Amino acid sequence: MRDGIAPFSAAEYERRIGKTRAAMEKAGIDVLFVTDPSNQAWLTGYDGWSFYVHQGVILGLEGEPVWWGRYMDSVGAGRTVWMDEVNIIGYGDHFVQSTVRHPMQDLAQHLRERGHETARIGVEMENYYYSAKAHAVLGEELPAAELVDATALVNWQRLVKSEEEIGFVRKAARISEKVIRTAIERAAPGVRKNDLVADIFHAGITGVGEDWGDYPAIVPLTPSGLDATAAHLTWNGAPMRAGEATFFELSGCYRRYHAPLCRTVFLGTPSEDMRRAEAAQMEGIAAGLEAARSGNRTCDVANAFMAVLAKHGIERQGRMGYPIGLSYPPDWGERTASIRSEDDTVLEPGMVFHFMPALWMDTWGLETTETILITEDGPAECLCDVERKLFVKE
Amino acid sequence: MRDGIAPFSAAEYERRIGKTRAAMEKAGIDVLFVTDPSNQAWLTGYDGWSFYVHQGVILGLEGEPVWWGRYMDSVGAGRTVWMDEVNIIGYGDHFVQSTVRHPMQDLAQHLRERGHETARIGVEMENYYYSAKAHAVLGEELPAAELVDATALVNWQRLVKSEEEIGFVRKAARISEKVIRTAIERAAPGVRKNDLVADIFHAGITGVGEDWGDYPAIVPLTPSGLDATAAHLTWNGAPMRAGEATFFELSGCYRRYHAPLCRTVFLGTPSEDMRRAEAAQMEGIAAGLEAARSGNRTCDVANAFMAVLAKHGIERQGRMGYPIGLSYPPDWGERTASIRSEDDTVLEPGMVFHFMPALWMDTWGLETTETILITEDGPAECLCDVERKLFVKE
Repeated sequence: MRDGIAPFSAAEYERRIGKTRAAMEKAGIDVLFVTDPSNQAWLTGYDGWSFYVHQGVILGLEGEPVWWGRYMDSVGAGRTVWMDEVNIIGYGDHFVQSTVRHPMQDLAQHLRERGHETARIGVEMENYYYSAKAHAVLGEELPAAELVDATALVNWQRLVKSEEEIGFVRKAARISEKVIRTAIERAAPGVRKNDLVADIFHAGITGVGEDWGDYPAIVPLTPSGLDATAAHLTWNGAPMRAGEATFFELSGCYRRYHAPLCRTVFLGTPSEDMRRAEAAQMEGIAAGLEAARSGNRTCDVANAFMAVLAKHGIERQGRMGYPIGLSYPPDWGERTASIRSEDDTVLEPGMVFHFMPALWMDTWGLETTETILITEDGPAECLCDVERKLFVKE
Repeated sequence: MRDGIAPFSAAEYERRIGKTRAAMEKAGIDVLFVTDPSNQAWLTGYDGWSFYVHQGVILGLEGEPVWWGRYMDSVGAGRTVWMDEVNIIGYGDHFVQSTVRHPMQDLAQHLRERGHETARIGVEMENYYYSAKAHAVLGEELPAAELVDATALVNWQRLVKSEEEIGFVRKAARISEKVIRTAIERAAPGVRKNDLVADIFHAGITGVGEDWGDYPAIVPLTPSGLDATAAHLTWNGAPMRAGEATFFELSGCYRRYHAPLCRTVFLGTPSEDMRRAEAAQMEGIAAGLEAARSGNRTCDVANAFMAVLAKHGIERQGRMGYPIGLSYPPDWGERTASIRSEDDTVLEPGMVFHFMPALWMDTWGLETTETILITEDGPAECLCDVERKLFVKE
């Protein structure tokens, strides 16, 4: 253990490793190969933009985890992880994007050397950074081992946040308030969208006081008018126009922790339709927050929101939120529970969700969301303090 | 065909589809399922931050390609791709991050409906956005089809750029010059790194004149001192210090096209060692540019650089560059050819590389790079115009 290098306390990393090992034992997994960069960081503190090459954390049932990656990034691991240097291993550059070699050949050798040749090895089958090819090569290299799907095994351990983690999310929330307020203040007819986004980035990365801003796992989503009927368009150089709604889906980021927040700005006078949708959305969010209590389920939150919307004659299906916390691109969600009618995850104190009941209509979109903390008792706490309404600038 | 929606001309997309189909026929592939977001955009114009869910382009040997993805993102496809609306298909939200359903079940149904039940289907086995799980489910759903590895099949078609594409890279290069100059001007003892990065983002996204800035596929890499011995650390809130070198690995981005550029700034008086390395690096880069000629090979560029470094007593191995152009996170490289001694790709006019012979030493790093265009005759053209040296600020 090298104390003071990674962002959290030794006790916090012990807690995480302990929870993960309990889940491994329950699943009959001898050793876990963790590729999700968020899971790697959560377990070890590793932090670098190197997830575009193969890398991961090897976690057995005993001893320190091992960070494995490209040699030049093992230097970065030496600067960021809490484990002893002996538990950081790098592979040669001739494995990188080679058409004749694959880094999984190197990984397999290390697993063999550590006695995992016939182990049940958990791998994250559904992850951006564990390719179909990687899985095929690892299987070929370790014919006597059993590769079992451990997708989201670590992610589920992240669902309930520690006090230390909630402290990080609260710092991110201060930055989220700053970026959303920047967007609302700056929005006006004639302002080029990219200039506004430049100000959003600037506000987020300068941060708040001593809490410097990290890069969010998703870039600002800021579509206007018809583009706002789609969920995930980014920006362009067109000027903002009167008569259009623009939604801002943004998050501050403090040391990889997020607190996403969306608000919508209308330039001019919104239609009656939009005003009615706004009223329904606000009432629905309030109902959702009331339902977001310890002991209730994720579906209760979604159903509470949908019931209000239905009363107002608006049909809204699909997913309305997901857990958030530590993340790397391309997603700031944790990919475990969902706030939706078919999900019955029981809410516990310390869970943090992006409650995200956006409305994408035929000719406009209305996004108003909150990052919420499930509390010991009472309704969820909204971690960001920005007025909840459609912002209208005449 | 819906003309005027995607960023390039109809003739340009025809050229791309034609090249790709020729490669498919050569590889005996009936239909290609393209998951790499860069390949999707290159073929269809699709542009959105939605690659964190399963999506892709279905390209048969005839007719328009088909964009397939989450329903809410099919709306974004309608706003960005050149194909007719009938060739945009969306799947329901109940497939998204579900533990009981997988989007590949929906894809398989569409492939069956299109007569590909027994086809040779090319899939990108080594891609961030085609998971091991996706491959397993697709194989189960289409037992009579043959899934063949088509990794980088489309990427290789992107290697030689059209005039239209080179025009986009040149616009990105103007933005790269602006961001690197911003970094060099702003670097000073006491400046917090995140504040400097905020200015870098602001400079890049405001862009140059009418050429608005898009988000680069990699965030600014700006490590100082010992952190600069690692290749891929991002920033923190620590102030810059006298006596340290900081490298800036940055790129402007114009409509997803990149022109990466690195320069290093030393605050104070650099050591003799660093000065000697600088001289060797500059001489080596000049030799590499001379060797980067149509008809030569990628290894000739690497070997020319290494020979100069060896003469100065510095050993430098590994990869020293890669093709660049259109890209999405997490990588701005194209993942085909490499500038390294074991790669013998023959250089052709219109290829664009990030020539990246950085030096990561024991106690400091020195990155000086160029985005280069292979020309008809003569040495490579450097697309960015920023003085090539170690920038020293006393």
